Amino acid sequence: MSIEPRTLKGFRDFLPIDARKRQYVIQILKKVFESYGFEPLETPSLEYADVLKGKYGEEEKLMYELTTKGGDEAALRYDQTVPLARVIAQYKEIPKPFKRYQIQSVFRGENTQKGRYREFVQCDADVIGSTSPLADAEILALVLDIYKEFGLDIMIKINDRANFENLDKKYVAAIDKLEKIGESAVLSEMIEKGMVEKDAKEALASLQNKFLTDHLRKILDVLKSMGKDISKISYEPTLARGLDYYTGMIFETIAEEASGSLCSGGRYDNLIGAFGNEQVPAVGFGLGFDRTIEILEEKNLLPDLSSTAKILVTIFNETTAKESQELAQFLREQNIKTDLYLDSDTKLEKQLKYADKKRIPFVAILGPQEIKDNKVNLKNLQNGSQITISQEEIINALA
Amino acid sequence: MSIEPRTLKGFRDFLPIDARKRQYVIQILKKVFESYGFEPLETPSLEYADVLKGKYGEEEKLMYELTTKGGDEAALRYDQTVPLARVIAQYKEIPKPFKRYQIQSVFRGENTQKGRYREFVQCDADVIGSTSPLADAEILALVLDIYKEFGLDIMIKINDRANFENLDKKYVAAIDKLEKIGESAVLSEMIEKGMVEKDAKEALASLQNKFLTDHLRKILDVLKSMGKDISKISYEPTLARGLDYYTGMIFETIAEEASGSLCSGGRYDNLIGAFGNEQVPAVGFGLGFDRTIEILEEKNLLPDLSSTAKILVTIFNETTAKESQELAQFLREQNIKTDLYLDSDTKLEKQLKYADKKRIPFVAILGPQEIKDNKVNLKNLQNGSQITISQEEIINALA
Repeated sequence: MSIEPRTLKGFRDFLPIDARKRQYVIQILKKVFESYGFEPLETPSLEYADVLKGKYGEEEKLMYELTTKGGDEAALRYDQTVPLARVIAQYKEIPKPFKRYQIQSVFRGENTQKGRYREFVQCDADVIGSTSPLADAEILALVLDIYKEFGLDIMIKINDRANFENLDKKYVAAIDKLEKIGESAVLSEMIEKGMVEKDAKEALASLQNKFLTDHLRKILDVLKSMGKDISKISYEPTLARGLDYYTGMIFETIAEEASGSLCSGGRYDNLIGAFGNEQVPAVGFGLGFDRTIEILEEKNLLPDLSSTAKILVTIFNETTAKESQELAQFLREQNIKTDLYLDSDTKLEKQLKYADKKRIPFVAILGPQEIKDNKVNLKNLQNGSQITISQEEIINALA
Repeated sequence: MSIEPRTLKGFRDFLPIDARKRQYVIQILKKVFESYGFEPLETPSLEYADVLKGKYGEEEKLMYELTTKGGDEAALRYDQTVPLARVIAQYKEIPKPFKRYQIQSVFRGENTQKGRYREFVQCDADVIGSTSPLADAEILALVLDIYKEFGLDIMIKINDRANFENLDKKYVAAIDKLEKIGESAVLSEMIEKGMVEKDAKEALASLQNKFLTDHLRKILDVLKSMGKDISKISYEPTLARGLDYYTGMIFETIAEEASGSLCSGGRYDNLIGAFGNEQVPAVGFGLGFDRTIEILEEKNLLPDLSSTAKILVTIFNETTAKESQELAQFLREQNIKTDLYLDSDTKLEKQLKYADKKRIPFVAILGPQEIKDNKVNLKNLQNGSQITISQEEIINALA
């Protein structure tokens, strides 16, 4: 076979060290979602193309489409919101409000030159079927709790789409860029799009001076009752969020010294009901999974995930293999993740090298003398120290 | 919009109750895999088509293929073994033996009339780069531990491909059906395929009387040293396992009163090295994820997964909403998964109905009297009982 082993452009393998980081982040997300009673949902990777089409505007061209051999026109999952809307229309029996989270891959034929991936995990949490500000508050509470769990200091910028009520969409799009391009560039764009200078200045200034809307105030009050640190939430009356479909509270989440939003969302009361031609209120967010992992790494906030096993049990020789197998079994029963070397005629040095390469922090050596003394030689590969202790003492030594 | 909300033929949604079952099973699998130091691997859903093609024989026609808009010929993951072989050839730096597990979706355009799915999760565990019988033993130990963790009584049937050494492939294929079609049908097939009756009878009888090979004996000895219950392993010298690529120990796993194998595998020393034109020994298994969940359900071995939340905190009225929010926060901090009702002007009866529909077992009611007394009314929806207790006492009442 002369096929070059390679990964499809824009797609990634996750070798153990990265796969463990991803699992760690997912586990924290699930823990927080479930602490609020949010329930998991999974939808298939492939949908009928007509279910997805016409929902993503111009971006639709990035969708992966295929015709199945049975002749079905299908497309790969592009986001998790349209499948959620489909599920809501398809299974009327789901009790509402429906608090659901979803953590699956989505597929977009993005330009890889911009460092974008074509398959990436999305993490969404949404409350479907409630107009209550308590739902908005719970969504923001999730975000606060998630990053608190990670130990990452964040700020949530919030606004209310109601602040843009009297402003044409094209001007909102300009104001949305305020932080990126600055006030004078925004004003130029507004003027270019048809506003006279005086009106543009006035519109922007009036927006900048808007007080908290009643709706946002209620949301913040609930968060206070929930004991959340609302000093992490800042009101930004010019925040617009690109997407058209938001109808109420909107937010994004930023970390210090990091660009871009880690997690953003808001209320969108007109989207989820699309399949059923009914109005189904919704509020939720999408969390940037790759971005969150990147920043946790940058800020050294991930635990040590360099190996799965905590200890390697070596095998001294064929005669002592049995004792090594018993020790490995004993350690596993004590909930210690234990790798057992798999050959009984490999030099100890090579076994230590294997542990080192796999970054396993401890190694147990069980030679004839240790077996006679009913002891184990425990070597710490990180600092090179060695102690000879009983099997039971290993548990504490590794703790 | 007049698109009918529906799932692509052969594909499935997993609503919360099923998604929780899947998560439970995956969590047990990971726990066992990691206790042995097996490491997670993730490969992309899409591969270059040429990486997958020519590896699955006739079944290749079931592969989902697509041409990307950039002109790449791609195919959806069909199994996890060919991607593993690609990874082994592509990342020479992976230390060997490499003990990896992988739990991802695969895609096959199966005939849905046979009750087959077109996207389903596969769970594979393999040891790459060791010819040691300890590796074979560890693979069997994983299977024993997994089903022990689930509380499911299983038998593992094992054999050694060496037993078929002097027998043509076509006769092995016939003998493989022994359990399904019986001895006389197997003999007929062997005769049909070219053996004379006497030889066929002799070949079958000689096989049935074969003693444990040395290799299998060594594997069983290691399992004994590991403290495993080898009475759950039965030697079946006629077991062949369909796939051609096995080279040594082979096995399948059956549960009482259940047809088909839950988990099967063996040693396959000539497959993983295919991309690098080298020999890379390997032993492992694939576990039937859907089948395992089905049988755990049939035998009532799944824990109660009917709801995510353990308790719903209701809201008596607008004035008491704050106290309910505080109670929900308190419970969440005690690691109790807590759903909070999201409207402050909904009748209590409707809130109880919501809890009932979501199968949340407990409900907390916090009216003005309870707040005055610093108590909570705790209702058990399963038996209808009610008690009025302090917030702190709830923790024990739910335990």
